[in-house]
Amino acid sequence: MDDKAWNELSRRMAELRDLGSIVGLLTWDQETFMPPGGADGRARQLAALQSLIHERLVSQELGDGLAAAAIAPGLDGAKAAMVRNLTRERDRAVKVPARLVRELAERQSKSVEAWRAARADGGFATFAPHLARLLELRREQADVIGHDGERYDALLEGFEPGMRVARLEPIFAELRDALIRMVAALADAPPPPRWRVERHRFPVDRQWDFTLHLLRDMGFDFERGRQDRSTHPFTDGIWRGDVRLTTRLSEENPFQAIFGTIHEGGHGLYEQNLPEEHAHDPVGHAASMGLHESQSRLWENLVGRSLPFWQRQHPHLRRAFPEALEGVSVEEVYAAANRVERSLVRVEADEVTYNLHILVRFELELAMLRGDLAVADLPAAWDERMMRYLGVKPDNDVEGVLQDIHWAWAELGYFPTYTLGNLYSAILYEKLAADLGDVDEVVRSGELTRIRDWLVENVHRHGHRWDAEEIVRRATGAGLSTAPFLRHLRTKYRSLYGATLAP
Amino acid sequence: MDDKAWNELSRRMAELRDLGSIVGLLTWDQETFMPPGGADGRARQLAALQSLIHERLVSQELGDGLAAAAIAPGLDGAKAAMVRNLTRERDRAVKVPARLVRELAERQSKSVEAWRAARADGGFATFAPHLARLLELRREQADVIGHDGERYDALLEGFEPGMRVARLEPIFAELRDALIRMVAALADAPPPPRWRVERHRFPVDRQWDFTLHLLRDMGFDFERGRQDRSTHPFTDGIWRGDVRLTTRLSEENPFQAIFGTIHEGGHGLYEQNLPEEHAHDPVGHAASMGLHESQSRLWENLVGRSLPFWQRQHPHLRRAFPEALEGVSVEEVYAAANRVERSLVRVEADEVTYNLHILVRFELELAMLRGDLAVADLPAAWDERMMRYLGVKPDNDVEGVLQDIHWAWAELGYFPTYTLGNLYSAILYEKLAADLGDVDEVVRSGELTRIRDWLVENVHRHGHRWDAEEIVRRATGAGLSTAPFLRHLRTKYRSLYGATLAP
Repeated sequence: MDDKAWNELSRRMAELRDLGSIVGLLTWDQETFMPPGGADGRARQLAALQSLIHERLVSQELGDGLAAAAIAPGLDGAKAAMVRNLTRERDRAVKVPARLVRELAERQSKSVEAWRAARADGGFATFAPHLARLLELRREQADVIGHDGERYDALLEGFEPGMRVARLEPIFAELRDALIRMVAALADAPPPPRWRVERHRFPVDRQWDFTLHLLRDMGFDFERGRQDRSTHPFTDGIWRGDVRLTTRLSEENPFQAIFGTIHEGGHGLYEQNLPEEHAHDPVGHAASMGLHESQSRLWENLVGRSLPFWQRQHPHLRRAFPEALEGVSVEEVYAAANRVERSLVRVEADEVTYNLHILVRFELELAMLRGDLAVADLPAAWDERMMRYLGVKPDNDVEGVLQDIHWAWAELGYFPTYTLGNLYSAILYEKLAADLGDVDEVVRSGELTRIRDWLVENVHRHGHRWDAEEIVRRATGAGLSTAPFLRHLRTKYRSLYGATLAP
Repeated sequence: MDDKAWNELSRRMAELRDLGSIVGLLTWDQETFMPPGGADGRARQLAALQSLIHERLVSQELGDGLAAAAIAPGLDGAKAAMVRNLTRERDRAVKVPARLVRELAERQSKSVEAWRAARADGGFATFAPHLARLLELRREQADVIGHDGERYDALLEGFEPGMRVARLEPIFAELRDALIRMVAALADAPPPPRWRVERHRFPVDRQWDFTLHLLRDMGFDFERGRQDRSTHPFTDGIWRGDVRLTTRLSEENPFQAIFGTIHEGGHGLYEQNLPEEHAHDPVGHAASMGLHESQSRLWENLVGRSLPFWQRQHPHLRRAFPEALEGVSVEEVYAAANRVERSLVRVEADEVTYNLHILVRFELELAMLRGDLAVADLPAAWDERMMRYLGVKPDNDVEGVLQDIHWAWAELGYFPTYTLGNLYSAILYEKLAADLGDVDEVVRSGELTRIRDWLVENVHRHGHRWDAEEIVRRATGAGLSTAPFLRHLRTKYRSLYGATLAP
């Protein structure tokens, strides 16, 4: 491939990235500063821009350029990765007919409305026909994209390139069984004495300052990013020079803002340290949603919910909230940040139970997509699994099967990325700990940028040069497995709860 | 033209408006919340988007659609206006070759750099060659666009559709001569006793609350807009449902924020009340920069700097800044808001001298474009005119010819829109006052939404259905003239300064 042809292809790649990054800003603004009257116009802007991006993506010229590059001899590794990534994305876009895209979009908004209505009157029945239709459309989409007999793979690929159900299922089953045993052992054990946050009020401006202090400690670069407030916390990497985080402040519970900020900060560090030389090509973004989540979970759970972290932060927290911390030991703060409970709601779940919530969803959506579970039977299946895995049963569909918005959005294949994030985070952290020596001392002394630097070197700077598991393998020598995550939980909760856990 | 053809044309019009409105958000964010590291990416986003918009604008399909519509029988008035507006815009875009657009863009950024350097070392010579080159490019641009022997017209048309130098020159000359006499009479007269703001400090959060109160009084809709802080105040109408204002807060001088907010609020009301039915076509925007400026000036000067306005606001101001207002009468506040001074700096100039600053710039840029004034002779010509019109001479080029960024941006033909704004504002206000009865009483009683409603009815809701002067003519029965503006100044300053002014 001569320079001229490559430059033309490269120009098209850059245009797609630059236009795509505008979608990021439109979305961020929508969730932060846009006045209510902006909504209709924003929907039009997004539609106009996305239809343009689609037009560019499926254009014959781009297709020809990618095809020529794919067979060109001697393309270096980075260029080959660009071509591979964009070809995958383009193939998916080309295969799905405009009619299906439109119908999915229309059905999604109606479905979200129906989901809200169902939550308001507490009945799954209102939502069921919409979910059934969305499932049909997703099946159709999976078939036009293509798969080896497992439709779920075609959807999963959109979030987790390279990952397959055949690889996930046995690993997730192993994780499930181990977690069920762990919950059984912990949830009924006497909990360690903890700080009672519910007895206090926490001024939001103090919380705000505390979260900024945490982000600075983590090495988040405020010259290339910012934090704002929003209803649901999220991270929007417009590009590596402009990464926007949001957090949520509640007077009742400072942990929401604290762990929310650490979580989004982990996403934010990934975005800020993506490879500069690929900032405007298809290697310069995250390798997968699961790997992205591994960064936020690593910071939130492995760093942020650790004892050494609170040994470091305890004096700062005490300065921010002197009354609420009066006579409260660091161990009690640590215990409060790590309560294990049989609970009904995913987003409030602790580190031990969280993945069981995900596995319920993964198994059910997989069964529906395979045709092994009818939509009408979903609520019963949900309740049955919740009882089996977590020992609790929802009183109604709102705190049961209607809990998450994902299915109303037709987002099937997304849930497993949360658990992948947890598994990858533990695999990476074990290697990181081995490389840094005494990682607890690193955290205790507040040298969090050493952790950031390890992640930059081993994960962030590769962007999407390889798929997620390959990046993890190159960083640690090991691929996906449950062992490091389960080791982490056993060690941590054994010390918190005493010798309740089997080895 | 059949429905199908019109719908297709209409779709293209809407796409252009929707994409264009994204430029608005990108720009607003750049001046308000974007972190410094976002700059490079933002420049790329804007370039990608603007090049796409240009591509759509000059497309053959749009040209054919517009040409067919232009000769279609029986197109109604609104549709005819859409076709006229977009055809004008497209013709300009089509005629200017890509090479010239690119060279102008490149020269502009270099020129702004040179202008900053020239301001740093105080020498016009550093900037002169850049200005000379920009002038050549603008001449070339004017020639390809086409004109009747007056190149300036081709540039002016970009800001003030339908306006011509031949119409402006005699009106501006009359204004100039009248203002020179007025300044001579006022600037040396003993000023009325005034509130000495410079002796106090004004907490910025109090100022902020006061500006929001003013916007509410004016009828600015916060469901469809917001105000933020920025270095230079501006208004960004993303669309009528989402209008963003900014203001600047200085501890030393509350008038900056107060009049800044009222000014931008005037722009904002125009944007919020553009015709809803044309929100996504080429009639749904302001008719010209001059008419836009007439809205901000009307609110800032005719309403905001009036005695009845301060009779209303005095108690509120006193509540906001009790110490600074201690023993200060409403007349003294009014006098402080209306000091007339021979000054060097346009953006700090008062209502009487302001247009003389503009006329200096208009006359000089016109002379340069005509070839009657060499760039090398510009500083001397500037100083000579400042002395003749305002009786002051800059000590150096920084407070003289290097004062504004407009020429460095190659923005030639923009300055007259400021003065047009002042003239139109006075014409509109006379009619508005006649229609409302006792307008002073309306202002004094705080019923500012009656003023807004008159402007919505007579100006805003027409969008760009007609060109600016035609809108003013339809609203008032009279076209452009200096008389209402000069009447306003004479009445106001006679009462402030006593009988110093000739009738």
